Amino acid sequence: MKERILEYLNKKHDYLSGDQISKHLGISRQGLWKHIQELKDLGYEIIAVPHLGYRLESCPDRLFAFEVLRNLHTKFIGKNIHYFDYLPSTMDSAMQLGMNAAQSGTLVLAESQVKGRGRLGRSWLSPKYKGIYLSLILRPRISPAACPVLTLMSAVSICEAVKEVTGLDVQIKWPNDIFIHHKKVAGILTEMNAEVDKVNFVVIGIGLNVNNDKSSLLPQATSLKAEHGDWINRVSLLQEILRKIESNYFLLEDRGAQEIIHKWRNFALTLGTRVKVYYQNKHIEGQATDIDQDGCLLIRKDSGLIQKVSSGDVIACR
Amino acid sequence: MKERILEYLNKKHDYLSGDQISKHLGISRQGLWKHIQELKDLGYEIIAVPHLGYRLESCPDRLFAFEVLRNLHTKFIGKNIHYFDYLPSTMDSAMQLGMNAAQSGTLVLAESQVKGRGRLGRSWLSPKYKGIYLSLILRPRISPAACPVLTLMSAVSICEAVKEVTGLDVQIKWPNDIFIHHKKVAGILTEMNAEVDKVNFVVIGIGLNVNNDKSSLLPQATSLKAEHGDWINRVSLLQEILRKIESNYFLLEDRGAQEIIHKWRNFALTLGTRVKVYYQNKHIEGQATDIDQDGCLLIRKDSGLIQKVSSGDVIACR
Repeated sequence: MKERILEYLNKKHDYLSGDQISKHLGISRQGLWKHIQELKDLGYEIIAVPHLGYRLESCPDRLFAFEVLRNLHTKFIGKNIHYFDYLPSTMDSAMQLGMNAAQSGTLVLAESQVKGRGRLGRSWLSPKYKGIYLSLILRPRISPAACPVLTLMSAVSICEAVKEVTGLDVQIKWPNDIFIHHKKVAGILTEMNAEVDKVNFVVIGIGLNVNNDKSSLLPQATSLKAEHGDWINRVSLLQEILRKIESNYFLLEDRGAQEIIHKWRNFALTLGTRVKVYYQNKHIEGQATDIDQDGCLLIRKDSGLIQKVSSGDVIACR
Repeated sequence: MKERILEYLNKKHDYLSGDQISKHLGISRQGLWKHIQELKDLGYEIIAVPHLGYRLESCPDRLFAFEVLRNLHTKFIGKNIHYFDYLPSTMDSAMQLGMNAAQSGTLVLAESQVKGRGRLGRSWLSPKYKGIYLSLILRPRISPAACPVLTLMSAVSICEAVKEVTGLDVQIKWPNDIFIHHKKVAGILTEMNAEVDKVNFVVIGIGLNVNNDKSSLLPQATSLKAEHGDWINRVSLLQEILRKIESNYFLLEDRGAQEIIHKWRNFALTLGTRVKVYYQNKHIEGQATDIDQDGCLLIRKDSGLIQKVSSGDVIACR
């Protein structure tokens, strides 16, 4: 009901009498008053003027489930949202929900995390109300070996959404980092719960710096606001990310990895450059030439030999 | 302390005065009496005769943690045991413990399960006090693709332990079923929690029919007692399984999959026979020739072509 009240107030952009709203939504004046109070408690600025009625002055900068769901228009991604002002880690909560049979497309959102996780046990800074910190449960019918392409699919979706909403030029550093002007703006972590030959479910975690001020960021990090100049509407951006993930997920199901890899290449920061890749206490150096069907990076060493790397940290050589 | 009292009573096999036991173990008579009552409540038959003292008449047929730990002599497997009279599923509990940072080697034991799980969502019948139903948490430093060999390693360990304790001839049907005289006696389920390129932890589930009566078994199933004739001591068998898993796990770490695969071949029911393998709504037919380093079954089709199958259900032809 709260989202219907907001939608109605939003649509009219002017004072609406309590009577008018109650009738339109089919609730009592008493019920309306209660909902309005609750919305105010959530941070919605709704002014009430005698003889004129209610007007929505401003919305709080929050990723409330009913805000994200409003005009989301997806088939299954984000249809079921677990929203928290604070969580230790959205990944932990989503893995838990997955084990409790949560549906594919279930989304865990937190306004802040204390133990936000990155790849290989690294941490992800998640200051309150500044970023988008989400974990998405998917149930693809694939084997564990086929999971890396889901990371690529997510990276492509973030790039497409950020480009569409902000116009910023975004790039992907293999395997899972999103960069703007050579600074990291987002990270992706894909975890799975699986039998040896069948994935039970996958959780895709995304940490994206949105409205962080430049001064609060580490030197090698950036945020969309820092690059774009303006404050970014996190709800709209999140909705676009979810829509892109859904359409790319369907693309993957229908056509296989090929199309996703093709899109990925267009955002690739790494390809065509000379790199060092550190993996399992070793490193190799060479030209990053391509990624293959499984999401592995192909490195052409100085000997001319092509080596395939399935995971690691890429450092650009100048 | 309970295990020390039992050990002392066991060792002497005769009446021991309360005074003697108290002194030997350094506890008060009052404390001893309390422990003896608790042991009786657990089903230990301990008789107390005035002027003679206590004698251990019999032990209950239970997999109590302190019984399993007594003389286990492993380095890390089973050092930490979570024992339950009943659980929905040891797999669910172990996956949960794994997410809560349980150490490698942690064991979940249940005397019965209602939702005992098998591969691909199938169920495993777990009647009370009849079988061994366990889930073991391991934290190997491997990629998800390397996990199938852990199933093979577990199958080999069960076969070695059953053979040692009962003398029965046991065989493995690829990938994860243990057979005696062409009837299924045990199943193995390996699940993982992983990043796309790094396993966080693995849970190996084992369901083994031990003392089930013939009449209570499905026609295609058997139990160790049904094959052997005699009642089997589940504690001793479980301990031997844990010891074999540990030594084979160290073997795998030290020498790689090669040695495990070599052992596996010696127990293989499937190899050298003509089979149909059903997988992903397809099937292929041919001669099962070998398994490869990754645990995949190699089938030589009538065309002479060798096809590799990573998962499926094997049916023997004729």
